[in-house]
Amino acid sequence: MAKLLRVNLAKGQVHYEDVPEKYRLLAGRSLTSQIVLDEVEPICEPLGELNKLVIAPGLFAGTRCPNSNRIFIGAKSPLTGTIKESNAGGTVARKLAKLGIKGIIIEGKPASDAWNVLVIKKDEAILVPSQELVGLGNYKTMESLHESYGAKVGIMSIGQAGEMMLSAASVAVSDPDGLPNRHCGRGGMGAVLGSKRIKAIVVDDTGADDAIAEIADPEGFNEVCKEWTKTLAANTVGLKNFGTTNLVNPINAVGGLPVKNFSQGSYDRFEKINGQALAAACIGNGGRVGHACSPGCVVRCSNVYHDKDGKYVVSAIEFETVALFGSNLDIDNLETIARLNRLCNDYGVDTMDVGGAVGVAMEAGIASFGDEEAALDMVEQIGKGTILGRLLGNGSTITGKVLGVTRVPASKGQNMSAYDPRALKGTGVTYATGTQGADHTLGNGLPGRFGVDTNSKDQQVEISRKLQIMTAVVDGLGLCLFIGPMPPTMDTLVKVFSKYVGKDITLDELLERGKDLLRVEMSFNKLAGFTNADNRLPEFFSNEPLEPKGVVFDITPEELDAVLNF
Amino acid sequence: MAKLLRVNLAKGQVHYEDVPEKYRLLAGRSLTSQIVLDEVEPICEPLGELNKLVIAPGLFAGTRCPNSNRIFIGAKSPLTGTIKESNAGGTVARKLAKLGIKGIIIEGKPASDAWNVLVIKKDEAILVPSQELVGLGNYKTMESLHESYGAKVGIMSIGQAGEMMLSAASVAVSDPDGLPNRHCGRGGMGAVLGSKRIKAIVVDDTGADDAIAEIADPEGFNEVCKEWTKTLAANTVGLKNFGTTNLVNPINAVGGLPVKNFSQGSYDRFEKINGQALAAACIGNGGRVGHACSPGCVVRCSNVYHDKDGKYVVSAIEFETVALFGSNLDIDNLETIARLNRLCNDYGVDTMDVGGAVGVAMEAGIASFGDEEAALDMVEQIGKGTILGRLLGNGSTITGKVLGVTRVPASKGQNMSAYDPRALKGTGVTYATGTQGADHTLGNGLPGRFGVDTNSKDQQVEISRKLQIMTAVVDGLGLCLFIGPMPPTMDTLVKVFSKYVGKDITLDELLERGKDLLRVEMSFNKLAGFTNADNRLPEFFSNEPLEPKGVVFDITPEELDAVLNF
Repeated sequence: MAKLLRVNLAKGQVHYEDVPEKYRLLAGRSLTSQIVLDEVEPICEPLGELNKLVIAPGLFAGTRCPNSNRIFIGAKSPLTGTIKESNAGGTVARKLAKLGIKGIIIEGKPASDAWNVLVIKKDEAILVPSQELVGLGNYKTMESLHESYGAKVGIMSIGQAGEMMLSAASVAVSDPDGLPNRHCGRGGMGAVLGSKRIKAIVVDDTGADDAIAEIADPEGFNEVCKEWTKTLAANTVGLKNFGTTNLVNPINAVGGLPVKNFSQGSYDRFEKINGQALAAACIGNGGRVGHACSPGCVVRCSNVYHDKDGKYVVSAIEFETVALFGSNLDIDNLETIARLNRLCNDYGVDTMDVGGAVGVAMEAGIASFGDEEAALDMVEQIGKGTILGRLLGNGSTITGKVLGVTRVPASKGQNMSAYDPRALKGTGVTYATGTQGADHTLGNGLPGRFGVDTNSKDQQVEISRKLQIMTAVVDGLGLCLFIGPMPPTMDTLVKVFSKYVGKDITLDELLERGKDLLRVEMSFNKLAGFTNADNRLPEFFSNEPLEPKGVVFDITPEELDAVLNF
Repeated sequence: MAKLLRVNLAKGQVHYEDVPEKYRLLAGRSLTSQIVLDEVEPICEPLGELNKLVIAPGLFAGTRCPNSNRIFIGAKSPLTGTIKESNAGGTVARKLAKLGIKGIIIEGKPASDAWNVLVIKKDEAILVPSQELVGLGNYKTMESLHESYGAKVGIMSIGQAGEMMLSAASVAVSDPDGLPNRHCGRGGMGAVLGSKRIKAIVVDDTGADDAIAEIADPEGFNEVCKEWTKTLAANTVGLKNFGTTNLVNPINAVGGLPVKNFSQGSYDRFEKINGQALAAACIGNGGRVGHACSPGCVVRCSNVYHDKDGKYVVSAIEFETVALFGSNLDIDNLETIARLNRLCNDYGVDTMDVGGAVGVAMEAGIASFGDEEAALDMVEQIGKGTILGRLLGNGSTITGKVLGVTRVPASKGQNMSAYDPRALKGTGVTYATGTQGADHTLGNGLPGRFGVDTNSKDQQVEISRKLQIMTAVVDGLGLCLFIGPMPPTMDTLVKVFSKYVGKDITLDELLERGKDLLRVEMSFNKLAGFTNADNRLPEFFSNEPLEPKGVVFDITPEELDAVLNF
């Protein structure tokens, strides 16, 4: 039987609990959000004793379901003040599933300032004092922990940013190479872990049973998954070859690529930072594309970037990182972008919030757009903990406030992902109305989806609603979003989930699970004081036409209020 | 007939308008808040084109009513996000009243980055380019403007903080000595003025008619005011002799004086910074007490502080400044406190928000409590516009967020005044539920008021409600709060207002005016997205007993929600 692992820092206790029946079919985001709603005081201080950090693998982690070994972290966010969930690939989810751990709840305020590592093995789960790791970045932290606990353990850790409780701090998750390249990046989950004085979580599944998931019809389940694995691999060849930077071309083409702090929508040098350029650099310098970020991944959108001297830099460079550290700063040099990415991974901060913050700082005149050395210096200051560094590590909203910039591309305190809402209106609707601040992974209205023109407002409210619900279905089962939160995937998931529970469920029932998850999150936010007035985008998106398409964000307040009215 | 002066920066136009009938009996805070509700989009960016700054003198400004020459500024606050009003004495209100100006509305986004001074004379009101003043503090700004426009003009101006749009930036108002010592300090009104690129407002009442107020029964009005003037002077001798620092002793005695970032409630060296010590220093060094901050003031709580060499430093040193820069930072040296006060007046920032922010920065380890030179250096950085300086100039909430401090003594983004809510629970209730963030001037439950023990929660909800309503009556007539927002004053105001309007109004009708003003402000805040969830104090006030009295803030959420339920 799966268990919940509860870590109480106030008492210094770690113990297992049975899983309540109501949580049995929840996992990933549906479990983290439900526990946060059930156990966290909505108006609590996010970095105080009343917040809790909840970690949960996907429902199908450890099974033959493709892209199912995903790890989810939830809490009240210090960045947005809303409920939050952030997920990543890596090696931890599968190991937790093998150990029969359905969720980890980290709660309470530590009695002392001393730091700990939570070590989870087959027969024990303990807090180990770890003062020697304090001040280390994620790369050295994981290296040290691999030395202590073996090369095969899975690790989650925070860098200096999480220790400083910067509100854009991430939680790093070890990738199949044992490196901290996968991040639960959004919403400051690393700051919450830092507030609990947990530097890392080590998961060792040695000796664990492989019979993990409680599948009612294992044979039928495996059959459906086998079939799906083939079609999924066939449908995601672009991601495998070019990674998520495959999006540079189409996003630039619709005029939605952020340039110079969201002041233009297409970049004259996009071909220097697009998927083709990145793949050529990865392969040319001795890195690779088609890298899997977690066991069981068939999409393989990750890549490994080496510098021009052939030295390993980072894995994986994502579209959002390329856009927000690249075109958004007028930087067209992939090598510099890779170094910025590496720094963020090391310090443990979200590349989107920091890229956005550096853009705002450049608009404030702290440095010029295009100044690569200044960008590197600014991000290095996060690791050093200077005042400017801490400012940037708190994201673009705080940075704008302190530096007197009102053109801040954020919603509910969180920087937008690399899709300008004026040119990608469905994504804009999601930024405004999503339960977790501006986040494309809540429902991304990409060009081509539903065959509409994303520059036009036509159908965009409905599209955002559909995508938010289907995304909640995917997240709520704890799967990787790159299976595609779209109708064909829903049909597949009906089959997979039916085999898992041993009875035929309908598409409507599946979608209702997504709606239920959104209802849970909206309930928390309402109790935390959020209203429709918070579901708006900054004024400049309505007032400043975005070139070259000349578009503004023209979804009305009334239309926004109708998006999640269920 | 009184007029409204509208300044539209987008069009570069200044023009007069008739006063709508519904505004006829509104003035001060009741006029600023009503216009803000009527004209400002509640969810607008406070430093953007949609916010408006409204300036209004009191209803009785220019009359023989004591303490009536008060100036009020309202807008949506960049500090709190709520509606905001901040008022001061000084020489401007009376001159505006003499010129027949009931209110000034400053709106729109300036077409260029160029700065202007708004010059108001009897026969013209114009925007005068003033690039030469940019970068100057308030002292040099006013000195320069007096040179240009004469010694007798009244001036409002912003310093470097307002230019940088720091959200704790104040608007300085010239005192009877022509110096920028009176401040509309709270809520960042200086940042809003800075966002409009208005460096100063010069008011020259030369040639203006003295027949200003529209009093229905001038004789009866003057008679009531004459009588009131005598009793008011007799009842405020303590304020005249010791200024507002008269409060150090009683606030320390009830254990509510902030010490080391609100971690203790009484200060072992309080006698080095109390009213007696300040009066002795003022008089001993060639300054004075009993100074009037505005014409017609009979309370005379202001003082003039000279340093040990007899050189002028600042006027007036207030209780809240002494407490937040003194005991709150463990600084017991009045000379240092005076210098900190002078710096804040010069840069144009609120001493409460900056004092609170420096306390938070000291808790973060940026400097040690008690380090006077470090405190001076930190505040000087505001004027220099360093990153740390800009951080502090945005107040304690942002400072705490960036530096990772959760013990931040603030509500809705605004630092508490110098009254710990655990020991002064009525004031605490006001901090939580007030329409403008933590602000004692919304309803201050001082020891002695209503004869209750402020350490006990008994009656404190009701007391806060009464005080908030009576304060709204006083502010809504545009009078100085030191007439006392208490029942005897209400009885006097019934008489004064009756004579003004020429018919007998009742006490209930007067109090209803206060409630109406609060309703206006609550309406705006509701539209701006505020809910009861925002009406709470930080957790540590409930969890950390405050020594020496061992008290916590124990007013329940339900009790808080009942405070302004009308």
